[in-house]
Amino acid sequence: MAEEKKIPYKIYLDESEIPTHWYSVRADMKTKPEPLLNPGALEPMGYEDLRPVFCDELIKQELDNENRYVPIPEEIQGFYKMYRPSPLMRAYRLEEKLQTPAKIYYKFEGNNTSGSHKLNSAIAQAYYAKKQGLKGVTTETGAGQWGTALSMACAYFGLDCKVYMVKVSYEQKPFRREVMRTYGATVTPSPSMETEVGRKMNKEFPGTTGSLGCAISEAVEAEMTNPGYRYVLGSVLNQVLMHQSVIGVETKTALDKYGIKADIIIGCAGGGSNLGGLISPFMGEKLRGEADYRIIAVEPASCPSFTRGKFAYDFCDTGKVCPLAKMYTLGSGFIPSANHAGGLRYHGMSPVLSRLYHDGYMEAVSVEQTAVFEAAEMFARVEGILPAPESSHAIRVAVDEALKCKETGEEKTIVFGLTGTGYFDMVAYEQFNNKTMTDYIPTDADLQKGFDGIPKFPGNPDE
Amino acid sequence: MAEEKKIPYKIYLDESEIPTHWYSVRADMKTKPEPLLNPGALEPMGYEDLRPVFCDELIKQELDNENRYVPIPEEIQGFYKMYRPSPLMRAYRLEEKLQTPAKIYYKFEGNNTSGSHKLNSAIAQAYYAKKQGLKGVTTETGAGQWGTALSMACAYFGLDCKVYMVKVSYEQKPFRREVMRTYGATVTPSPSMETEVGRKMNKEFPGTTGSLGCAISEAVEAEMTNPGYRYVLGSVLNQVLMHQSVIGVETKTALDKYGIKADIIIGCAGGGSNLGGLISPFMGEKLRGEADYRIIAVEPASCPSFTRGKFAYDFCDTGKVCPLAKMYTLGSGFIPSANHAGGLRYHGMSPVLSRLYHDGYMEAVSVEQTAVFEAAEMFARVEGILPAPESSHAIRVAVDEALKCKETGEEKTIVFGLTGTGYFDMVAYEQFNNKTMTDYIPTDADLQKGFDGIPKFPGNPDE
Repeated sequence: MAEEKKIPYKIYLDESEIPTHWYSVRADMKTKPEPLLNPGALEPMGYEDLRPVFCDELIKQELDNENRYVPIPEEIQGFYKMYRPSPLMRAYRLEEKLQTPAKIYYKFEGNNTSGSHKLNSAIAQAYYAKKQGLKGVTTETGAGQWGTALSMACAYFGLDCKVYMVKVSYEQKPFRREVMRTYGATVTPSPSMETEVGRKMNKEFPGTTGSLGCAISEAVEAEMTNPGYRYVLGSVLNQVLMHQSVIGVETKTALDKYGIKADIIIGCAGGGSNLGGLISPFMGEKLRGEADYRIIAVEPASCPSFTRGKFAYDFCDTGKVCPLAKMYTLGSGFIPSANHAGGLRYHGMSPVLSRLYHDGYMEAVSVEQTAVFEAAEMFARVEGILPAPESSHAIRVAVDEALKCKETGEEKTIVFGLTGTGYFDMVAYEQFNNKTMTDYIPTDADLQKGFDGIPKFPGNPDE
Repeated sequence: MAEEKKIPYKIYLDESEIPTHWYSVRADMKTKPEPLLNPGALEPMGYEDLRPVFCDELIKQELDNENRYVPIPEEIQGFYKMYRPSPLMRAYRLEEKLQTPAKIYYKFEGNNTSGSHKLNSAIAQAYYAKKQGLKGVTTETGAGQWGTALSMACAYFGLDCKVYMVKVSYEQKPFRREVMRTYGATVTPSPSMETEVGRKMNKEFPGTTGSLGCAISEAVEAEMTNPGYRYVLGSVLNQVLMHQSVIGVETKTALDKYGIKADIIIGCAGGGSNLGGLISPFMGEKLRGEADYRIIAVEPASCPSFTRGKFAYDFCDTGKVCPLAKMYTLGSGFIPSANHAGGLRYHGMSPVLSRLYHDGYMEAVSVEQTAVFEAAEMFARVEGILPAPESSHAIRVAVDEALKCKETGEEKTIVFGLTGTGYFDMVAYEQFNNKTMTDYIPTDADLQKGFDGIPKFPGNPDE
């Protein structure tokens, strides 16, 4: 207990301890994630194939499965200094509330204006776009965290930023939209009348409120038709996970500094960027047989890619214009129930995490949203931070694991990723406060409709 | 320049350096702030007179002009550890953007869920209420930062929290309302039908959207009619400024650590709690003749208490049920133009700051809101933090002072208070983004109407 008290509520590393290298966990994987496939010929895509869409350096990072340590350019480190290192918090108050012998830590990524970890990759992607001499980038955003992060990054490097925002979010989250505009981004509700695919969607489905899949297609079309632009993406891709490894490297440095050994590492998983980043160096140790950790991905029961999806090649977007990735997927046509609040609505999953999960290096659990918000409310009241709905999935499972420790008396050390704050998600909290929030679990028949859209070809079995 | 670079972007003190004592600048004042007067008899109010309304210990703190160092109870220090010490940021990027030789620092109080410095006093007031064995507290909130902070503090100590929220804010800021509800507070739109004064207002002015003055009256009535409740206030009062001195003490410790001597200290001023807290130990040195600083209060041109108000005894609330304070005031009937965004709308000013300003120890300037938002946008883009409109008043003047240094070549050190974030103020940013924001400066005739309501009695001259 005396030793205990030495650990502060917030472990802040020095700025000199901000990672100088990203950690690419692919270097430690015996079985590498599968390459992206061309949507037409179904052939692996190389550097030249991807150049029309993505920034050159980012493609190199995407394809590089060998280098474990990738230097972080000085300009990016400079930007990181404005909000990093992020604190590793000891949840003393939550432990007390739960009366658990477990020790709970969380890495808090919400102390920046984007409100989430998304900024870690946004600034890297904007940097490489700028370095390539591009005029700007295009992207899509749903809940708005990624769009906000990219807008901030582009403002910093004086890069043009075109964001296609799913129309329903554009209308229901005007504040997110205005934050992006304050950072100088052009925000267009999708489907728009600016692109061919947008006009087609508006004609075929008058009054549609849009979808992430359509917004992706618009963003890709916009970069293809605007010279000097490239398309950037906030999750799923290998390079994005690698950028997010700053979360994990800082976490490990902080734990090592205090001689703390994690037993369980927990993160929410939508496309996988946060979880992949958080676990990178820990998973590296595990893959090299140097340490063991329980690693748990948490996903919503309403969009259960890991726990109920197929491990197969599938399209990354609903419009089927993007490459195919080998991943856990619910089918690119799967649309989560409208009642589901917040993010984590993506049908697929990072190919890196999918491979690791398939090979037994990590676990996955799904949780229902009312239980998630119960944990969020408790956390907010004792720890003082109002968590994002996405992050609250990890809180739920961290609490559950801590309660198991209470039963068994085990003093396990639990580390989870608190990816962001919920200030722009108060509509969901309002539902919870008013007790009008409902849960939804898709039936097997619901899921089958999504699975039917997974392309059938030799070597693409449903596993 | 080499010496320069040693100063990090963010100076974080250790948790062990969180102040153990508040700093009461009243101890250093030769002329003390005047006592509160009873609204009926116009006589100074003592401990017993104030007990029906305020918590006992807070009254003692309010009346104590002698003790310079007041111990911070351990429970409050424990809560502070969840979000303090707050960082003192070096605005390298802003300096670069302005091409100024000035060195700019800001103390950032926005990294907590209340989004502002208000939490520093809220937790203290909730603690003393709990310690007194009270069931709960009542308060009013306008923009919502104070109500949020108090809700968080009450949730922490298991205290009931009744917030009367100005009806127009209740309706236009549903997210603020839901944050308070998430922390378990009861939020009532004011005027309500729950209190006599509320019912009267609703009857006399059907469809009224309320005012802060009326919400105060409702909150006071609610505590008077509910046994076990007291009324708490988030600014203006002496004890509130003292609680906020943690801002200034931390700032001074951080500057001293790096051997930095501030030349100019700038803060926005509504009721004065942030500015009073920030400057406390610096003003102490100045009053004792140990150091000199330029200290600048920044207020909106639309609500210019310092720069165009009268130094006189006036009512603290529009309903004239609260005590009178000797302060710079625009008259308790003054209502700032509806076009003014954000806070800083209070007609009066902290008696402590009023006395210091009157005696020549600090300056005050007023700024127009379009210029404020121009500074806010620039700051957001280079420093990455989206500032609250209130805080942006200080940014505006810090930028102006830095630009003066650019002209003169002086390498001054400027420190300003960044009191909070603007996540819940996007309606104002939207006006700015859409170029529909307008400025308003009251005419002398407009102000005269407010001055006419200042009570006339012997010894209450208009100065």
